[in-house]
Parts: sequence; C-alpha cells; structure tokens
Amino acid sequence: MSRQCPIAVNGREYQWPRRPVVVTCLDGSSFEYLFHAAAAGVAPFLRSLLKNGFVRAAESAIPSFTNPNNLSIVTGVPPSRHGIAGNFFLDRETNRAVMMNDPCFLRAETIPAAFARAGAKVVIITAKEKLRRLLSAGLDGLCVSAENEGQPVYSSILSEHVLRRGAELMASTAPDLMYLSTSDYVQHLFPPGSSEANQFYAAIDEQLAHLDRSGATLVITADHGMSAKTDPDGRPRIIFLQQLLDAWLGTGNTRVILPITDPYVAHHGSLGSFACIYLEDRSLTAEIVPRLSSLPGLDLVLEHDIACRQFELPEDRTGDIIVCANHETVLGTHPHEHDLSVLRSPLRSHGGLAEREVPILFNRRIRLPSQVKRFKNYDAFWFALNCADDKSDSVRLAGSGEGKGPEMTI
Amino acid sequence: MSRQCPIAVNGREYQWPRRPVVVTCLDGSSFEYLFHAAAAGVAPFLRSLLKNGFVRAAESAIPSFTNPNNLSIVTGVPPSRHGIAGNFFLDRETNRAVMMNDPCFLRAETIPAAFARAGAKVVIITAKEKLRRLLSAGLDGLCVSAENEGQPVYSSILSEHVLRRGAELMASTAPDLMYLSTSDYVQHLFPPGSSEANQFYAAIDEQLAHLDRSGATLVITADHGMSAKTDPDGRPRIIFLQQLLDAWLGTGNTRVILPITDPYVAHHGSLGSFACIYLEDRSLTAEIVPRLSSLPGLDLVLEHDIACRQFELPEDRTGDIIVCANHETVLGTHPHEHDLSVLRSPLRSHGGLAEREVPILFNRRIRLPSQVKRFKNYDAFWFALNCADDKSDSVRLAGSGEGKGPEMTI
Repeated sequence: MSRQCPIAVNGREYQWPRRPVVVTCLDGSSFEYLFHAAAAGVAPFLRSLLKNGFVRAAESAIPSFTNPNNLSIVTGVPPSRHGIAGNFFLDRETNRAVMMNDPCFLRAETIPAAFARAGAKVVIITAKEKLRRLLSAGLDGLCVSAENEGQPVYSSILSEHVLRRGAELMASTAPDLMYLSTSDYVQHLFPPGSSEANQFYAAIDEQLAHLDRSGATLVITADHGMSAKTDPDGRPRIIFLQQLLDAWLGTGNTRVILPITDPYVAHHGSLGSFACIYLEDRSLTAEIVPRLSSLPGLDLVLEHDIACRQFELPEDRTGDIIVCANHETVLGTHPHEHDLSVLRSPLRSHGGLAEREVPILFNRRIRLPSQVKRFKNYDAFWFALNCADDKSDSVRLAGSGEGKGPEMTI
Repeated sequence: MSRQCPIAVNGREYQWPRRPVVVTCLDGSSFEYLFHAAAAGVAPFLRSLLKNGFVRAAESAIPSFTNPNNLSIVTGVPPSRHGIAGNFFLDRETNRAVMMNDPCFLRAETIPAAFARAGAKVVIITAKEKLRRLLSAGLDGLCVSAENEGQPVYSSILSEHVLRRGAELMASTAPDLMYLSTSDYVQHLFPPGSSEANQFYAAIDEQLAHLDRSGATLVITADHGMSAKTDPDGRPRIIFLQQLLDAWLGTGNTRVILPITDPYVAHHGSLGSFACIYLEDRSLTAEIVPRLSSLPGLDLVLEHDIACRQFELPEDRTGDIIVCANHETVLGTHPHEHDLSVLRSPLRSHGGLAEREVPILFNRRIRLPSQVKRFKNYDAFWFALNCADDKSDSVRLAGSGEGKGPEMTI
C-alpha cells in the first residue's frame, strides 16, 4: 500500500500524516484544570493553545470512564462499535462480573494498529499497564506503560513519565503516529486551581511544548472530566444502589455492576457516577425506572434500549437499566463493599453526564467541514489526520507572543 | 446605495451585516482577566467563548492606551492613519501640549459613521464622555456615554451600564451596527482573579450573554492589557524621565509628553509605560537614545522615524524619541508633577509592549482568509463583517453545553 493512500479503520478514512501526529489523552482533565493553570501562569503552552489554538468543548463517551474513552479515541468509534463500555459487565449466562481489560474484548481495530500494518511507525505510551494491554491490541509497534517501566502508580510522576517518554521518542525517532495517555491520579485528589493540580499541569505543559516544538501536529483531549462528589462538609454523597434495590425488591432480584471498579481503588474507592442494573426479571424495568428517577442525586435513569441508542453503548455489555448520578453524587453497591478509608482526600470522581464535557485542543489550524457541529473526543485522530492544516505553523508561534510585542526587525 | 453593497472606509471594504454586529471593547481586559473569571466559574458566557468560540491573541496599537485603540477599532486603521496617538501631543509651533480629545483631531472616518451614512442603524455607547466625543465624529446615529447618563465615573457601574444599555437597545431596536466601549476603572485597581475583578466580569458576562442571545454577531476585544507597575512591596516603579533628561542635558532642552495624561488621574496618576520626548535640537537623538537604552526598566527606546514605521504612528504627533517602559515600570516627568496620593491601590497601568496583547473573541465561526497570520484588535469590524459565518449558530449553543450532556430527544 502506498503511503499516500488513506487508511480505512472501522468504516472511517484517515489520511496518511504528512508530519507526525500526536494525540494526547490527559486523563480527568476538564476545562477547569486548563483554565486555572493558564490563569496561574504556570502552563504557558496550554495558555497559548487556549488563546490561539483551535479549541472546542467535546463530548466524551458515556460512561465517562477511562477505558471506554481511551478505546473510543484510538478506534475512532463509540463503545457500541468497539465493545469496551467500562471495566466490568455482567455475563448473563454465568451471572459473573467479567473484567474487560483483555484485548479479546475489543471488537474494533485501533487506528494506530491499522497505520502500523500499512507501514507507519507507531508509538503508544500509557500510564497504567491495564490500559496498555487493550491499546496494544493488534499493534505492530512500540506500546509501553509507565507503570511497567517502574514508575509509581499512585503519583503524578506516572503521567509526567508518559509525556516525557513521548517527547523523547518524538525527538529521537519521529514516529508517524503517537498516542499518549496519562492517569487521573492528580485529578482524583486535587481540584482545579489547587497548587498540586497547577504543579502537575506545569510539568505536563513543559512536555507538551517539547512535542509541539518537534513539529508534530498535536491534539490534546481527555477521557472525562472530574467533579467533587461531596457535601459541603467534604463527605462523599453516595447512593448505595444495591442496598436500595434489595430493600425494595428483595435480595437476588437485581445485580448492580459498577463499571468503574478496578484494582486501583485508592483513586475513587470504586465509586463513580455510572451504574448498570441487571434484572432477574426484565419486566421489573417498568417499576424500577420511575422509582429510581424520583431519587434526588440522579441525572438519568434509562432502560437498556434507550440507553444504548442514546449513548452508543454495546447492547450485550449494558445493564437492563443504566443510572447516571449527578455532578455531586456517586453510586455504590452496599456500604460494606466500599472501603472509604482508602480515600486520601474528599472524593472526586466521574462517570456521569457532569464529567462528559472534555476539552479538545489543536496546535494547528483546523479546516472544519461545514457539516461538523459537535465534537467527540474520539474524533481526535480524524481531525488531526484529515482536517489539520499541516502546512501552517504551530499556534505557539501565532499572535503576538507572550505579551512581548512584535519581533523587532530593526 | 443598496444595502447589499460593501462599504469602503479608509481603504478597506466591509460587507453589509446580515445580522446585527456588536463590537465590544472591554477596556484593560487582558487574557488573564478572562481566564481567571472562566476558572472561577463566574463568567459562563465568556467561558463558552473560550471553549468553543474563535479566540485569538491580538495586537493592540502602541501606545497601548485607550483612545488610540478605540479609534483604531472604529476606523479599522492604525494611528498613523487616524491621527489619535494618545491624549496629548506637543504642538512644535506653539510648544504647547495639545489634548486630542476633540473630533477635529481625527483624520479618518469611522466605520459606524460610514455605515450610518449608507442607511444603517448605528449605536455607539462609551463609558466616558471624553471618548464619546471622538467616537461620535461624523456619526448620524445614537452615541451616548454612561458618564453623560449620570453614572459614576470611578465605579464599575459605569462599564456595566454601557453593556446593559447596549443589550437593552439591541433587544428593543436591533441596530445594524453597535460599538460598546467600557472603562478600565476595575482593571487599574484590581488584578486578574481578585474577587472584585471576577465580580466585574460576572456582571459583564451577563450582559454579553444577553447580546449573544439577541442573535447578534458579537466580537469581544480590548484596547490594551494591564500590569502591576510595582516592586515586591507594592511601591510604584517610576522612571521620572524629565527629571533625568534635565539632569543630563540641562533644563529646557527636552520636553517629555506623557500621552496617558487625562482628567481622570485617579486611575493611574498620569503614569503609563509610554512617553514621547521632544528635543530642542534633534541632533541630541544620537546621544540620548543609547543613554536611555542602557537604563533598567525600559523595553524600548526608538527614534521618531523608526517608531512611526514600527508602530504605525502619525509622524506629526509622535515625539523625536519614544520610550516604552517594561511590564513593571511606568514613566513620569518630575516627582512633583505626579500626585501619587490619588492612587487608591498599588499602581496598575499600561501603555507599553507588555500590555499590547489583547484577546479577540467571536461568538460565531470565522472563515479566515489564509493570508491572515496576525490579528490586530482594529480588525474587529473587518472580521465580524467579512469573515463571520453569520448563518452559523452562536458558539454558546455548540459543544455539549455546560457539562449537562446531550439534549435528550427521547
């Protein structure tokens, strides 16, 4: 295949990059984190993108969790197509919760894998090993995790390492396509504008600026936002769904699955704002949906078919009812199944509609087809490969610089 | 003249607006003020523009003062063409400092005046009366100042009134073209992110959102930025230029003009970061320029011809030498000519290169001609009338809204 031919992946076409393309997924990075870092003056490169770049609010996939969104971004399609709708789903035949961290659960090809097969040099770097396995599916290229390279998981260093490695590899080997994905350790602990968050974005900013200076077309987006899920005293607001359903309907009639559950509990204690309810008897749907809908703290209670259509979810990995808690509320199963002592600060989490909005920033002009009205984070590669004006300079060089006035030519 | 014909003003062509166009000059509003207000969550409309609008860092005219920039914006040309290079210049024949607040000093037609003559309904609202007089030059349309309408000059209310009146008039009479210009009272007193500044931008934001909802194409820019001109203890850093020159060369050989000087001294005590030096004997230039250039605290010392070329200044209203102080320094004449007791807070001012960068934000898509590389605030009307996609929705409606998820169609 000629390097000039567009590559088709999951029914979408992608142009061969004329300069390196780097898509960066900054885990848990809402606009608030970026605005605060820009306002504090600690992130000059992100600030220049906010001022001169192509910037849009984009929608992430629901549930607004890490894996569904990372896989959406690398495949260019929603969870209904690639199959990864969370960390867990219920296997109805065995009635067991199945973890979807293995590549065998992935139903779509990744864009990096398709380009690598066509001869492109591709690099993927993730923070955590669990995600690396999924992202490496079918990939003939470098795919490493900072965790596997010995970096501490519960630390901002993990994410910084991802970007530093990316910038180093870009400088040394100039791959055609790069995907960098960080961890939301910092965002789970610290709110936008906190010194810890600003310090993190300062370090990230430095590496992003390196990538920009390398001449790459750079896209920065996120998998989801992050909200404080607490009352005014800092105590978590939790709706224990399984406990509630058991009290209403008796034990054993429903099974609540929290797809945020993963081995890294210290981030969130398995508490997020999205849950699936599986029913022994689906006819209970008509009773449960309105009853749950009247609860305070919930944004949305939808039955399976409507949820799958509305949010492009895979039918066989979505509960009979899905529940989204609101911006200040999370969903649990039973109190005894969540060890809140692991939380090291007031709970911050995600998964619902309030964390759906994410930034998407480009370091080059984007020639936008007129039919494009809404932005999805999983269009990141599509915009970068098909719409970026790769003859234009980086926006870092645009405008009048950092208030320094014109370059003096006299 | 048909309403469809483009209007030529000062050698540039402007399309007739298909929907109302509002250009807003937020006096003294650097990006920092906007980023902080967005990060604090108090300015949802400005936040939506930063996220989804067409946003660029633009250059303001030097000196980065109010009148040169307001007149540049309404005429679409730099001070070299419209003549207003500050509040004062030295009349070499009479050796008197002449105030340029009268319309007779304006050498170019304004865009609103040209459109009004062609039959457009035009409205101009300014904060202060001094500027209103200049902006009303040749205008067959409504031109009012908040000051003249009885609003207190030393108050944030003055600016809020400008925008509120604008939003009311847009709702009631839907003029074709509107220019709104606020005062920098708040910015001279309070830094970005202070509660006072955020409160001001919250009030401004509300009115801007009204204007946006009216369906107008809205441009938001500024005349200049604003910097703290103090040492770490909050004392003003002032270079008293006249005192210095008199000490070097003897009294009467030089005349320092501070074009920021105006009747509203409480804002800045006539201390800005730009000064003109007029010489009895122009051959002194060669001696003074290098001597001044070696002073700490100055960004730039340029002789007349170079300054006029570099900054597009009017030759007959520019000193033999122009001086720009740096981001933390202002220029005075003699200590006894500046009453620092009028300052009500640590000095914040403008006039130099550090305050040159201003934001320019649009509420609609901009179809940018490929040759446009740099943005001037005085291109505001040109972009709004010639490049805005006035068939597109306001960006307020774009993206996924304020984290509320999709509109539910079920």
